[in-house]
Amino acid sequence: MPAPYRSFRSSVPWLILLLQAVFILLFYFFISDGAGYIPTIAYAAFQDVNHMLVFGFGFFFLFLRRYGFSSIGFNLLILVLGVQCSVLVEDLLIFLLHMERQDSLERIIKAVVSMTAVVISTGAVLGKANPVQLILMTVVEIIVFHVSRGMNHVFLQLPDNITMRHVHLFGAYFGLAVSSRFWEPSPRSEKSRRTPKSDLFSMLGTLFLWVFWPSFNFLLDVDGRSRTISNTYFALAASAVAAFVLSALTTKDGKFQMSHIQSAVLAGGVAVGYTADRIEYPWIAMILGLLASLVTILGSYCLQRCLNPALKIHDTSGVHFTFGLPAVLGGLAQVILLVVQNWDNLPRLGSLVMIHVGAFCLTISVASVTGFLTGSILNLKVFRTIPVSKYFEDQFYWEVSF
Amino acid sequence: MPAPYRSFRSSVPWLILLLQAVFILLFYFFISDGAGYIPTIAYAAFQDVNHMLVFGFGFFFLFLRRYGFSSIGFNLLILVLGVQCSVLVEDLLIFLLHMERQDSLERIIKAVVSMTAVVISTGAVLGKANPVQLILMTVVEIIVFHVSRGMNHVFLQLPDNITMRHVHLFGAYFGLAVSSRFWEPSPRSEKSRRTPKSDLFSMLGTLFLWVFWPSFNFLLDVDGRSRTISNTYFALAASAVAAFVLSALTTKDGKFQMSHIQSAVLAGGVAVGYTADRIEYPWIAMILGLLASLVTILGSYCLQRCLNPALKIHDTSGVHFTFGLPAVLGGLAQVILLVVQNWDNLPRLGSLVMIHVGAFCLTISVASVTGFLTGSILNLKVFRTIPVSKYFEDQFYWEVSF
Amino acid sequence: MPAPYRSFRSSVPWLILLLQAVFILLFYFFISDGAGYIPTIAYAAFQDVNHMLVFGFGFFFLFLRRYGFSSIGFNLLILVLGVQCSVLVEDLLIFLLHMERQDSLERIIKAVVSMTAVVISTGAVLGKANPVQLILMTVVEIIVFHVSRGMNHVFLQLPDNITMRHVHLFGAYFGLAVSSRFWEPSPRSEKSRRTPKSDLFSMLGTLFLWVFWPSFNFLLDVDGRSRTISNTYFALAASAVAAFVLSALTTKDGKFQMSHIQSAVLAGGVAVGYTADRIEYPWIAMILGLLASLVTILGSYCLQRCLNPALKIHDTSGVHFTFGLPAVLGGLAQVILLVVQNWDNLPRLGSLVMIHVGAFCLTISVASVTGFLTGSILNLKVFRTIPVSKYFEDQFYWEVSF
Repeated sequence: MPAPYRSFRSSVPWLILLLQAVFILLFYFFISDGAGYIPTIAYAAFQDVNHMLVFGFGFFFLFLRRYGFSSIGFNLLILVLGVQCSVLVEDLLIFLLHMERQDSLERIIKAVVSMTAVVISTGAVLGKANPVQLILMTVVEIIVFHVSRGMNHVFLQLPDNITMRHVHLFGAYFGLAVSSRFWEPSPRSEKSRRTPKSDLFSMLGTLFLWVFWPSFNFLLDVDGRSRTISNTYFALAASAVAAFVLSALTTKDGKFQMSHIQSAVLAGGVAVGYTADRIEYPWIAMILGLLASLVTILGSYCLQRCLNPALKIHDTSGVHFTFGLPAVLGGLAQVILLVVQNWDNLPRLGSLVMIHVGAFCLTISVASVTGFLTGSILNLKVFRTIPVSKYFEDQFYWEVSF
Repeated sequence: MPAPYRSFRSSVPWLILLLQAVFILLFYFFISDGAGYIPTIAYAAFQDVNHMLVFGFGFFFLFLRRYGFSSIGFNLLILVLGVQCSVLVEDLLIFLLHMERQDSLERIIKAVVSMTAVVISTGAVLGKANPVQLILMTVVEIIVFHVSRGMNHVFLQLPDNITMRHVHLFGAYFGLAVSSRFWEPSPRSEKSRRTPKSDLFSMLGTLFLWVFWPSFNFLLDVDGRSRTISNTYFALAASAVAAFVLSALTTKDGKFQMSHIQSAVLAGGVAVGYTADRIEYPWIAMILGLLASLVTILGSYCLQRCLNPALKIHDTSGVHFTFGLPAVLGGLAQVILLVVQNWDNLPRLGSLVMIHVGAFCLTISVASVTGFLTGSILNLKVFRTIPVSKYFEDQFYWEVSF
Repeated sequence: MPAPYRSFRSSVPWLILLLQAVFILLFYFFISDGAGYIPTIAYAAFQDVNHMLVFGFGFFFLFLRRYGFSSIGFNLLILVLGVQCSVLVEDLLIFLLHMERQDSLERIIKAVVSMTAVVISTGAVLGKANPVQLILMTVVEIIVFHVSRGMNHVFLQLPDNITMRHVHLFGAYFGLAVSSRFWEPSPRSEKSRRTPKSDLFSMLGTLFLWVFWPSFNFLLDVDGRSRTISNTYFALAASAVAAFVLSALTTKDGKFQMSHIQSAVLAGGVAVGYTADRIEYPWIAMILGLLASLVTILGSYCLQRCLNPALKIHDTSGVHFTFGLPAVLGGLAQVILLVVQNWDNLPRLGSLVMIHVGAFCLTISVASVTGFLTGSILNLKVFRTIPVSKYFEDQFYWEVSF
């Protein structure tokens, strides 16, 4: 029954336009622009992360055979809307919390990094949410993410760049909570299957993410030490190795499986994000990368076979095991590292552990609860206009000519 | 009748070789090389722009289903020939106009940026011009472009980096004038249609251009302020949003169309090129981006339905509305900004407006007239060897194995 | 007879895991990490080279119609294993030869640059070697490459960054020698043919390599002069022009052939690698680029028709003429340049020529001999488990769903 959507479809552009007009108005009133000069390395790293979000995730999510235009296109749409929204929310927080003002480029860098959370979340509802749902989710999520960072800053006195490191964790669990409220597609749908061609495009995206991940972690580190880069590189290397090992061990006749490789090669980068600037020896980063890959592959088995059917969650791109579980591991590693490095100063150790565990729990709770609420709102009858039979179909949104 | 082309084809490599030999000779006599050291940010931005031209435009023009090899291959060929030619012409101008000498890297950066004009022009005759026509057009256009810049410099005292900002305008109108002299393909040719696969490759190119555009505008700004980057980013973001809005509003049943998105997402970057370093608030850049997108989409309707058939222009890649109209808007915005910023100093305002309007008119006239002449020469019988029935076909130029 | 491989396949992951465990142990004992800060330009250039190896070569080798997953996937696997191995071997050499210690980022940069040799070598046995053979080859080759560099350093007193310039030469001849020990595929195998689609992906990889090559040569030059970049750019440009010329001259009816372009456009970058920092005028770099392209295309004819059948070598990706012959030309150009630049100081000239010719001969001999031995070991019955009929097939290693 495409009828309700057709009438609905006519209102989509007006909604987007309204949102854009609101953004411009708010920018007009609140955002002034400095005239600073560009620190080179920040610019180079920003371009890398910009690349990651536009191409990397765009193509990473291109594994569905009939959903290529939407994966790439909607990714761009929510990115550009979300970045503007993020700049506004962040400036409001800076004003409210009396933090230091930022240069215009720094502001965009932070907004782009924050948008990683939203892009990861959209992976969980890929092919199931319509553009309006995606846009509403973007606006809500980016606001909640900054509020969650603000709470960490106010209650736990965490500095700004540390609160940003929860971005993968927040994105994965918010997305997962949202997707739990969406109807499941029929399990053996032809359309949700991969093809060798779509897998190749998706691998292109994965490799983009893999190559640029050190720049991502570098932007999370204010000091700009070269060990942030090298630790991230070694963690990614170890998890790429582990991805091949585990893929061959878990398939029937010892063959490799592309989807395993795609999710597990990135696990090391996610996990090491919390601690890349403080790990002193590369072997620690390598072990963390190995464990992250292990958690991802085992997680993909357990979740897809046991937990997801039980909880009626359908996580299209597997963001739970690709980004969520490695981020949990990374949070754990951070606490262990704190314990090891502050063993001789117990009172300080106690407070540090409390703060970091608190921030972790706060973030994951805020993400899950608000994600669940957002998912419930998005599935009100007024928004839920795409029938399950039209999931994963470009033709529902795009004029496709053959 | 492939006969005339076959005999012609045997002379193509000799022509290219001759040109390359001439370039080497001229380099031998005129180009010496400094031994300067590299300013990092210039190098990073140069690599971005190099990327834009080699991949970005190569894949952007890959929407024709049977013209992939030629889109990518000929783009590379004219780029490498044109860069060498541009270095020579620019050095001659620097000598004649007694300007400051340049470092070897600066020289290549300017040459690559100038080649954007040529690459845009080739989009207008994509699939219709043979390699010899493309190469002749490249040489003529790059010379005329530098002469036009020189005229702006001599007659209007514009500094070097300002004259470079007309690069999109020049390229679009030169290409359009050239294409007006080419025979039209049959309107419903199977070969000029898009496929989902070719659209996906073309989107890959578009996203490359989109991500790297801030670096392009950054290279046009001598001061290297960070607001050049942020204004470009916001203009691109707003025009991406507007591209989706307008695409949904103009198609029959509210679906998005990939070709709209591809041309309109870039409009903001083109339009803001003239003023990115002087816009003080991001909201101005955003409105400019919105308007640029609007101009592009409306332009694509008006031009393709009314103006082009009337003038018998067939603009394969739509460079007129993708690059030409947003550049016109950008020029207009530049004048308005001048008026607003110099309102209190009327004499100075008058001369500034005169200069910038003069440069704009000069550039567009030179481009159109020389483009028309070039197109006429290229369509002399001696060069016109590709029958209309062989338009848009790789197999005419490439050994294609299946 | 897939039986022997199936049992073998079950041991593949354990081998990889063992190797990774050994690496981590060695890192634990030997590799400490500095806490230096990042020199920006080194980081930007490193990301470019990282890109080249992960995507560039991955997609460059994607021309086989049924071997896409393996080209990309195994390239990543050997890269991440090889980089870790290279870091260890290099640190051992630095310790043994009492050289200066390195920062953590420098270390990775050198390891990634060294891995180019291995990646080139794998091109020669692409589709014929199984993962175990590839991994063993990687470990052996990276050790031998560093030993060969160490010999150049100890016996000929060459500085570190000069010995690194033999990386293409070493990779090509090692790979060639290895491939001479592999069984030839049946000459007219359907599976080893190219398709337009696979050619397009391969061209994507080639363009990545082409764009990033200046950064590669820049990393080989300690002084960081901008003429290293500009000479490399002009050499690449000239060889791109020559690639089109020669392709049209050597095909039957004057059409271009994609495979020619793909191998010849890079020749200039390889050839100029030895001398990019010392060539004073761009026209010299351009002539070198032209000659390199000529050598590549003529080489591809002579080798594929005469030499390879005679020597029973099957060089899948043509690494001999793509990387080997241009590197030989580059070595020759280096000697000629030395002669020209030191003509007035004959004793010094004599010793310089001796040293560079010696280093060249030493490197090529070590590569060929150890490559031949490695190939022989890899073809012992215990490793040789892939029947010739299964060459060039993804399905032998990957779960491919249609």
